Amino acid sequence: MSSPARQRGRRPGDSGTRAAILAAARARFASHGYDRTRIRDVAADAGVDPALVHYFFKTKDGLFAAVMELPFRPAEVLGSEVAQGPDGLGERLVRRILSVWDEPAHRPGLLSMVVSAAGHAGAAAALREFVRREMVGRIATVTRHDDPRLRANLVASQVVGLILARYVLAVEPLASLDADALVPLVAPTLQRYIDGDL
Amino acid sequence: MSSPARQRGRRPGDSGTRAAILAAARARFASHGYDRTRIRDVAADAGVDPALVHYFFKTKDGLFAAVMELPFRPAEVLGSEVAQGPDGLGERLVRRILSVWDEPAHRPGLLSMVVSAAGHAGAAAALREFVRREMVGRIATVTRHDDPRLRANLVASQVVGLILARYVLAVEPLASLDADALVPLVAPTLQRYIDGDL
Repeated sequence: MSSPARQRGRRPGDSGTRAAILAAARARFASHGYDRTRIRDVAADAGVDPALVHYFFKTKDGLFAAVMELPFRPAEVLGSEVAQGPDGLGERLVRRILSVWDEPAHRPGLLSMVVSAAGHAGAAAALREFVRREMVGRIATVTRHDDPRLRANLVASQVVGLILARYVLAVEPLASLDADALVPLVAPTLQRYIDGDL
Repeated sequence: MSSPARQRGRRPGDSGTRAAILAAARARFASHGYDRTRIRDVAADAGVDPALVHYFFKTKDGLFAAVMELPFRPAEVLGSEVAQGPDGLGERLVRRILSVWDEPAHRPGLLSMVVSAAGHAGAAAALREFVRREMVGRIATVTRHDDPRLRANLVASQVVGLILARYVLAVEPLASLDADALVPLVAPTLQRYIDGDL
């Protein structure tokens, strides 16, 4: 497996290839941000064909999720919820977010993302661009308000704060509250931001 | 001023004393957390009389604010708003928070607090205890709901998320929005959490 004589070829199935792509992507996201990082540049830095990057990570947001050690692709999760329209979106979003974060196996990767973003300006900038493009941009497409991006920002503010309070600061009783009890408390906030009612 | 021959006495007015107390407090908060740090232990570590700690920092939350480089004492600010009762508290809280953070001179200290908490387990634990005791504990005294601490947790989640989205992630248009336009968007969320209506 990790024999020192292992071939260094850049082929699917070679775990060294995947690691090389991840290392190149991590450096690019930190130095160029999310928006200005292109799959083809990451491939060139890693010395592989761009098709291999797509083979391992599908899309740029998949590559970013892997660099941040996320157990899922946020854009995919968000996209499937947003596709069902604005009715009940607040509740569906809270439910999906809690189901991902409540899974203990996912926690270390998610926390390392928060820590690296807070402690490293490049990581923070990349995360900001990612949140803006893949999350705020998607939510903005379904709000019924005349300033959809602001509404999506407000949704993001409550989601990020909920994650921090429940999982990072771990204030009680919020940290131990059952997801089924928490969803109806927070969902109306998100729905109000989405719908634009005051 | 900073002459090498400066006296090393521990008296009010000696800036070396204040720095020694701060260094001792920073180490204590990181190793013992907020709750188990006592003014008298910080004084002993710094080799000064406890009265000097009170002279410089008034209270434990004042000492913590100084260690975290905060430009104000959160417990004092919060206490004066909470003392006016629950009616309109959501709006008063958002307004006070924005007025502190919107001041550019305050920004570096506040951001360094976020970064140190995220990157250092001891700092995160101390911040968690501080939020719990001085912030959640105070807000919990005025909510009209039968689970006041949970309600205060939810208030904290939206406040922390708003700070992160507006000042750390700096997503637009939220980051540049005038405080007068932002207050009516977020205040109803806090008021709903305080009042306990769903």
